[in-house]
Amino acid sequence: MSFRILLISLLAAVSLPAIATATESVIDERLAATAIALRDRALGDSLAYELVASLTTEVGPRLAGSEGDRRAVAWAEAALTRLGFSNVRRMPVTVPHWERGRHSLSIVAPYPQRLVASMLGGSVGTGEAGITAEVVRVASLDALAALPTEAVAGKIVFVDQHMPRRRDGSGYGETVPIRVAGPGISAARGALAHLIRSVGTDNERTGHTGTLRYPEGGRAIPALALSGPDADLLSRQIDLGKPVQVHLQSTARYLADAVSYNVIGEIPGRQSDEIVLLGAHLDSWDEGTGAHDDGAGVAIVTAAAKLIGDLPGKPRRTLRVVLFANEEFGLSGARQYLADYNDSVAQHVIGMEADLGAGAVWQFGSRVADEALPIIADIHALLAPLGIERGDNEAFGGADIGPLRDAGMPVFGIRQDASLYFDYHHTPGDTLDKIVPADIAQNTAVYAIAALIAAEIEQTFGRLATPQ
Amino acid sequence: MSFRILLISLLAAVSLPAIATATESVIDERLAATAIALRDRALGDSLAYELVASLTTEVGPRLAGSEGDRRAVAWAEAALTRLGFSNVRRMPVTVPHWERGRHSLSIVAPYPQRLVASMLGGSVGTGEAGITAEVVRVASLDALAALPTEAVAGKIVFVDQHMPRRRDGSGYGETVPIRVAGPGISAARGALAHLIRSVGTDNERTGHTGTLRYPEGGRAIPALALSGPDADLLSRQIDLGKPVQVHLQSTARYLADAVSYNVIGEIPGRQSDEIVLLGAHLDSWDEGTGAHDDGAGVAIVTAAAKLIGDLPGKPRRTLRVVLFANEEFGLSGARQYLADYNDSVAQHVIGMEADLGAGAVWQFGSRVADEALPIIADIHALLAPLGIERGDNEAFGGADIGPLRDAGMPVFGIRQDASLYFDYHHTPGDTLDKIVPADIAQNTAVYAIAALIAAEIEQTFGRLATPQ
Repeated sequence: MSFRILLISLLAAVSLPAIATATESVIDERLAATAIALRDRALGDSLAYELVASLTTEVGPRLAGSEGDRRAVAWAEAALTRLGFSNVRRMPVTVPHWERGRHSLSIVAPYPQRLVASMLGGSVGTGEAGITAEVVRVASLDALAALPTEAVAGKIVFVDQHMPRRRDGSGYGETVPIRVAGPGISAARGALAHLIRSVGTDNERTGHTGTLRYPEGGRAIPALALSGPDADLLSRQIDLGKPVQVHLQSTARYLADAVSYNVIGEIPGRQSDEIVLLGAHLDSWDEGTGAHDDGAGVAIVTAAAKLIGDLPGKPRRTLRVVLFANEEFGLSGARQYLADYNDSVAQHVIGMEADLGAGAVWQFGSRVADEALPIIADIHALLAPLGIERGDNEAFGGADIGPLRDAGMPVFGIRQDASLYFDYHHTPGDTLDKIVPADIAQNTAVYAIAALIAAEIEQTFGRLATPQ
Repeated sequence: MSFRILLISLLAAVSLPAIATATESVIDERLAATAIALRDRALGDSLAYELVASLTTEVGPRLAGSEGDRRAVAWAEAALTRLGFSNVRRMPVTVPHWERGRHSLSIVAPYPQRLVASMLGGSVGTGEAGITAEVVRVASLDALAALPTEAVAGKIVFVDQHMPRRRDGSGYGETVPIRVAGPGISAARGALAHLIRSVGTDNERTGHTGTLRYPEGGRAIPALALSGPDADLLSRQIDLGKPVQVHLQSTARYLADAVSYNVIGEIPGRQSDEIVLLGAHLDSWDEGTGAHDDGAGVAIVTAAAKLIGDLPGKPRRTLRVVLFANEEFGLSGARQYLADYNDSVAQHVIGMEADLGAGAVWQFGSRVADEALPIIADIHALLAPLGIERGDNEAFGGADIGPLRDAGMPVFGIRQDASLYFDYHHTPGDTLDKIVPADIAQNTAVYAIAALIAAEIEQTFGRLATPQ
């Protein structure tokens, strides 16, 4: 560290009385100064942007089981090795391998028009003849449930529900059941296919894909997400009062399960049996290049750990970066990680995950034992100058660290601004140009500070009660 | 006209001293009051929006020669008839009939990735085997011209030039030669195909199509416009320094010429041998629904004329709405109109056209005889309260009224805000949701005022010198 940076860091530390002077502070002045210097370095660092540029340029789409997935694994191993991570390894994960194939979707009456839509991930195809049927429109799954079976059987259901745009992304959870559970519900009522308005916030002419889940033992029917303008178009034709008929043809199908890998790299700690886990997922959907989802997360956690690794001396605990296989298609990598490391779950002192794009972080929350809340307060004090609010202690943490969290691992809840994220999420448009370099650097700073403090303090975050 | 509207109109007129009091004013107080009432009615009227909604919902894409084109002609005849226009007729126009077919475009080395692009209108296809070749990137047509032939021959040219975003849309004219003339230039240098960064201002993952023009007797090579993110991707791979190879396959082709129609409707005048022409084009590109280009124009000029037709009494001159066939693919309708009405060109007192979307009008200019400039000033005074600037007397007027203008017809230059227009222009995303109802109503008000004054005043706009 140059004298100039040290001086700036110490001056900055002095300006944070909550850390520098409060008697209950967990973080000593030296560590706070290091964190502030790390933060400033990360804010001016372009490594995360360079990593996501490299992944989206040299690999691109990387759906579980695909050739792109294999290339992504090789890319990740090479990147972690090149950046100086230790113990770089790939851990095999069995993943489903679904193939989108080709589809066509058109209104055939009363006013023929092609419709732009995306097959939902995991959808069955139609066979060569395709399906032609009348559309029945509903505003929600509740409205679908309220229809008599004879109004649905033999028809194509269209759920025309809008996802609201919100910074916290909560509109997604509210709306996504029309995609995940909807197809099974329509199938159970005898429908021939299930269409939805894309679960997204844009009005571009590209659909938002994403997984669906057919109920065990139930019928499986083809399911697609219309782009916003195409949902509008279908709806306007329905509004004209004549029966609207749609034709659908699709070659979507499952291939044999494939092998993918969780890719892991570490910054080894002095006290190496304790682990601070930083997670993101390496796979992406097949139409975009997975820039925000989750190239950004891969880049952020890798860059954050690398910046800590560049500090003089080893951290107390090991930083473990885990780039999970197949988040999108059922969390295969997350489940496999828990199986592989079941004996060392208790060594995972804290987990944090980045999987909501590269919008600037606006809130720092947690899910830790009550006695660890002062640490959270101290970390927040280091983050507050970046405009970050304090969240509650009920954080979700992320999908890929969910199995570990459920097994008792505390988590940070680092929340990214999702206002624009669902414009691109799961679309062909999830490409590098949508990432703002300054925002991904801010993310890197936040994850670096949180990981540094978690790795360096003497205390731990306790354990969580495992859910029933 | 209700008493209330009359009163408001007169009060409004009083607040426009340039019209009400200036001694040189061409427009009398009664006409000004009518114009102001018409303006206010148009601002609150939804007819233009309803028309473009109807056209995009019930017809949609309508490329010259296609089934959609035939449906659009029927739609236009029915709409003009239903709205009470007189002398509704279709005038046959021979049009080219090009078919996009299917294509695939991929980087095959060094990092295989699919590229999203749109075939340029009129492009030849590749044959079944397709083309695989190295990409040579240039920043402009000048840079292409500067390359030695051996650097281009046998390669695929990629012109990576960005179109600037500007309110007046002038960035289009600056950039569009890479699309129109570029393929012919590349072909003459021995290139196998011609790729461009889309001539557009968005970063959506859809290409911007549009016509190309192969030189007479020259080679024809396939040509495509990459979406912005795909141009970025190709460029980033090139930046990595290894040779970049692309594979292209396309079934694009010309079919036999087809018959389309200029569709015409009139509000007959008391002095019916003089014509005020309002033009727009009925055809559109094949990937979007032609909402901005040029459903909006069709709707604006139709609604403006209809609102004048609803006034008590006939206008002095006939308002003739001309919905031109095949603007996009070579102005066939515009040329045919001039041939059909060659004997009555001098009866066309003024022409105005709407073909730059539905952004709010920001400037009113003209191309009229000098002695008619006081009329332009008076019309501008009526438009100024809508935030509209005065333009110069060098107006272009529009592509479809170009042949008439070149034959001496004066034109208005009603300029729409094009800031967002080139985000959607010639893309699948040119759909109804991009039209702002208040903006298309503002357009209708402007065209209605301009057409009313042109139809009612005693004076004419003179004749233009015909170009050499």
